[in-house]
Amino acid sequence: MAIGKDSLENVFRMGSPKWRTSITRVEPNRIVTRGYSQEDLIGGVSFSEMVYLLIRGELPPGNVARMLEAVLVSFCDHGVTPPSTQAARMIASAGSPVHACIAGGLLAFGKNHAGAIERSMKLFQETVSGCESEDEIPEAAVRLVDDHLRRNRKVPGFGHRYHNADPRAVRLLDLAEEYDCVGPHTRLAVEVQNILLERKGVRMNVDGANAGILSDMGFDWRTGAGVFMIGRLPGLISHVYEEKVREPAFRKFFDIEEIHYDGEEEKNLSTGADLEPMPE
Amino acid sequence: MAIGKDSLENVFRMGSPKWRTSITRVEPNRIVTRGYSQEDLIGGVSFSEMVYLLIRGELPPGNVARMLEAVLVSFCDHGVTPPSTQAARMIASAGSPVHACIAGGLLAFGKNHAGAIERSMKLFQETVSGCESEDEIPEAAVRLVDDHLRRNRKVPGFGHRYHNADPRAVRLLDLAEEYDCVGPHTRLAVEVQNILLERKGVRMNVDGANAGILSDMGFDWRTGAGVFMIGRLPGLISHVYEEKVREPAFRKFFDIEEIHYDGEEEKNLSTGADLEPMPE
Amino acid sequence: MAIGKDSLENVFRMGSPKWRTSITRVEPNRIVTRGYSQEDLIGGVSFSEMVYLLIRGELPPGNVARMLEAVLVSFCDHGVTPPSTQAARMIASAGSPVHACIAGGLLAFGKNHAGAIERSMKLFQETVSGCESEDEIPEAAVRLVDDHLRRNRKVPGFGHRYHNADPRAVRLLDLAEEYDCVGPHTRLAVEVQNILLERKGVRMNVDGANAGILSDMGFDWRTGAGVFMIGRLPGLISHVYEEKVREPAFRKFFDIEEIHYDGEEEKNLSTGADLEPMPE
Amino acid sequence: MAIGKDSLENVFRMGSPKWRTSITRVEPNRIVTRGYSQEDLIGGVSFSEMVYLLIRGELPPGNVARMLEAVLVSFCDHGVTPPSTQAARMIASAGSPVHACIAGGLLAFGKNHAGAIERSMKLFQETVSGCESEDEIPEAAVRLVDDHLRRNRKVPGFGHRYHNADPRAVRLLDLAEEYDCVGPHTRLAVEVQNILLERKGVRMNVDGANAGILSDMGFDWRTGAGVFMIGRLPGLISHVYEEKVREPAFRKFFDIEEIHYDGEEEKNLSTGADLEPMPE
Repeated sequence: MAIGKDSLENVFRMGSPKWRTSITRVEPNRIVTRGYSQEDLIGGVSFSEMVYLLIRGELPPGNVARMLEAVLVSFCDHGVTPPSTQAARMIASAGSPVHACIAGGLLAFGKNHAGAIERSMKLFQETVSGCESEDEIPEAAVRLVDDHLRRNRKVPGFGHRYHNADPRAVRLLDLAEEYDCVGPHTRLAVEVQNILLERKGVRMNVDGANAGILSDMGFDWRTGAGVFMIGRLPGLISHVYEEKVREPAFRKFFDIEEIHYDGEEEKNLSTGADLEPMPE
Repeated sequence: MAIGKDSLENVFRMGSPKWRTSITRVEPNRIVTRGYSQEDLIGGVSFSEMVYLLIRGELPPGNVARMLEAVLVSFCDHGVTPPSTQAARMIASAGSPVHACIAGGLLAFGKNHAGAIERSMKLFQETVSGCESEDEIPEAAVRLVDDHLRRNRKVPGFGHRYHNADPRAVRLLDLAEEYDCVGPHTRLAVEVQNILLERKGVRMNVDGANAGILSDMGFDWRTGAGVFMIGRLPGLISHVYEEKVREPAFRKFFDIEEIHYDGEEEKNLSTGADLEPMPE
Repeated sequence: MAIGKDSLENVFRMGSPKWRTSITRVEPNRIVTRGYSQEDLIGGVSFSEMVYLLIRGELPPGNVARMLEAVLVSFCDHGVTPPSTQAARMIASAGSPVHACIAGGLLAFGKNHAGAIERSMKLFQETVSGCESEDEIPEAAVRLVDDHLRRNRKVPGFGHRYHNADPRAVRLLDLAEEYDCVGPHTRLAVEVQNILLERKGVRMNVDGANAGILSDMGFDWRTGAGVFMIGRLPGLISHVYEEKVREPAFRKFFDIEEIHYDGEEEKNLSTGADLEPMPE
Repeated sequence: MAIGKDSLENVFRMGSPKWRTSITRVEPNRIVTRGYSQEDLIGGVSFSEMVYLLIRGELPPGNVARMLEAVLVSFCDHGVTPPSTQAARMIASAGSPVHACIAGGLLAFGKNHAGAIERSMKLFQETVSGCESEDEIPEAAVRLVDDHLRRNRKVPGFGHRYHNADPRAVRLLDLAEEYDCVGPHTRLAVEVQNILLERKGVRMNVDGANAGILSDMGFDWRTGAGVFMIGRLPGLISHVYEEKVREPAFRKFFDIEEIHYDGEEEKNLSTGADLEPMPE
């Protein structure tokens, strides 16, 4: 049973909005998460085990924990090139507190940024669940690529705007082999890469590799951006700190000369053809 | 021509990412927005004219400005019932600065909250653009309602969780008549209301009325949530200020008894069946 | 009295956290803000009157409403130069929905950006409340400037990184005269400008002018950034919309060549002097 | 040396705003963070080592990595009681995407919530740096407590609104002993607890324990909220996911009966004493 005295009071609270949660039970001097006391979890599990426990609801087997550790590390930082990092630093330069800078950075994890890993996971999960056995994966990979190329679409998780061979993807796939974490989704990702490399010269990126690996660990594609954010947070924090301690406050991120105005020519407000005086 | 000396330098900046904008030209001691000098706009136009100028690119005729003023006022506040207001106040209670509280409040303008006005505008705009003349609107309204009822869907912009006759919608429609601002989209909204009222006893809400009116003013449905946010911002600010000056810091928004835990029973970490020792 | 049946139920909710508000009362089909029915406010008051009503708690006299309208318009937009606008556009480019882009933009209204108007209001309000009569203002202005110059500090509200004579400030002061809205705070601002202009060649900016004017209207300095945000929101929305409809998704805001790395030289992980193997 | 061809081009970019970073160097197919290739870091270091590397700039010794792992786990979740979790779930209920929900949750890490750990770290760091040797710590602890009690202030990091003996703090201190991670700051924290327990019956909370331990690891107090956010992010993600999959969309978090309005009595707009007609 749960928190509180679910008795008389509730007779009077019928229809009352209640908070319901299956994640953590809080009682005085006792905090139990997913069934485990936090006293036991602290020092008893690694951070990646905790991530898995919170999101997936149970503790992972050891090789999965180790693989997830690598996945989280692989998301750590990409310098100042991502819009999330730039936005976080701009907000820091404007003098907002750290948590607001980080929040602003995370707001840039939109469908074109962190969205890629979720689209890739969704694609792999739907494709694999449409196969009756793993033998069908190579064929499914061909159909998947054909379908995207015909519609002139990029396959999410493949190609990168800075790298033509993303070093993180290569390493992650090696580790997945080493840790015995390759399942049908990662296999599909590798098949897709083989076809795309031959036809278009395009390789898997960090999102594609992690999409396969996280799917094989059982992560719902809707949690993909979340895992990315966990991995990237330390990087964002180090950038915000760097901005605050090394750069001048409210610095100009652009010269005015780098701005090109291409709007309306200047006109006179009083003679503007489209302006009537404000009605009285 | 605009900002900058588009000359020699750019030879060396080929492919360089440039900021391009048609909204405002900034030069030393001169700021020109949508073609009008800000010196002329300040004191020369009302705030609602400015909103229209910025978003639609030109100044509105007088009755439209007056109508938009009413639209903005109609969004002003709905007490502490919306999640945006609650979130903003919680963030204020946690001790964040005003701009972070407001940002947090706006983050709750998701598809179930501010999304309704955009879905309503989209629906009206697509329906009207599918009619060859205004005579077809009544029929289109019937099809629209049939289609939603058949799919067991609510028509966005109709019905309200607190009001069965939203007083703001009634007033807005009266004003649209009075200001001669009723066009095909508002007409469609009224037709839909008539049908829904007869069949389901459901009336238009503030979003539905504004969706019709803003569409008749030429606002793209993608800007609907933006207009809502402009109207609601003063309300959010007054709530954040009220929280900060009247309530204790970091107050409890819930009693622990109001929380119902329904997750895993407590188990022992060391004997957890699903736990292997962490790999070395 | 207010919403609800404050009776039997509350006996059982003793100590329960309650929401309390003096802003808006919501009842079925009735919404009353600061004592006025929203049906009356819609079409009955201008947006600037609504802003004043929500934040200050009462309706303004006519000249104040007109002045506030000009204040709000003066904050409308400053092209793509502010970090708030840049951050909002970056977040839009990353594919986040409009409300998240706007929230991210507002997060850049930190102490170096929107903070200036609040610091300026605070300074004016404290200085004026320290004067026994308006006759003391000129002397107080001298002390204020002396004090800042001696501590090598900028006076908030004076000087601008793009304009040496901010055209908005000039216009706002003219209007304040015209509308008979000049009180002691604006008078102080003008005195400070006269001294700074003579000694340092520095003039009032839009924040300084509005700080004086809003203070004379009775706005608490803690609400200054809020008023700025209301004025700027339409500009932010037009920029986010422009980014979404005119620019390629996930565009690069910087060339990789514009980034200068000045951190650690590359070293070998396995031989890193500061690295021990992870403990068992 | 750094990214790019810092040559001829820069002659033409004098005064141009440049991005400068010491965190990560990005080159095609090569990403080097704090001097280590990401290929080596992935699978080569744990997540807690990565956090330390990013924020502190170097890899930690093994016992420190293990201690930091426990610190991160200790921040994992506190059910639905914190305003950050409530705000994140409300934003989720309003239909915003996951990254916007998380951003909104983090915005509640204000000075009353995550601020406690930073204030506690600052206090410990300033106190310890004011001691000439560790022998002075017990005395410094007495002065610290005296000073707070005299000013009627809580000592940050001590006392909890739900726990009188925070089980996380107890466990963390035990681990710090076990891992040989107790330094002067943790020692100070323990001394302070002893005094507070005797005089006020108040014990250390999770923030106080982590403030001591993180300070002994060399973390600047300005990074304390950042470390808290890293630890809490998986919890926030699991709550947002739970809200999205288990609860009805746009649910009411409060009954209207739980809201108490205590503002102005209703009055007539047209006869309002403080209202003049809007000026022409």
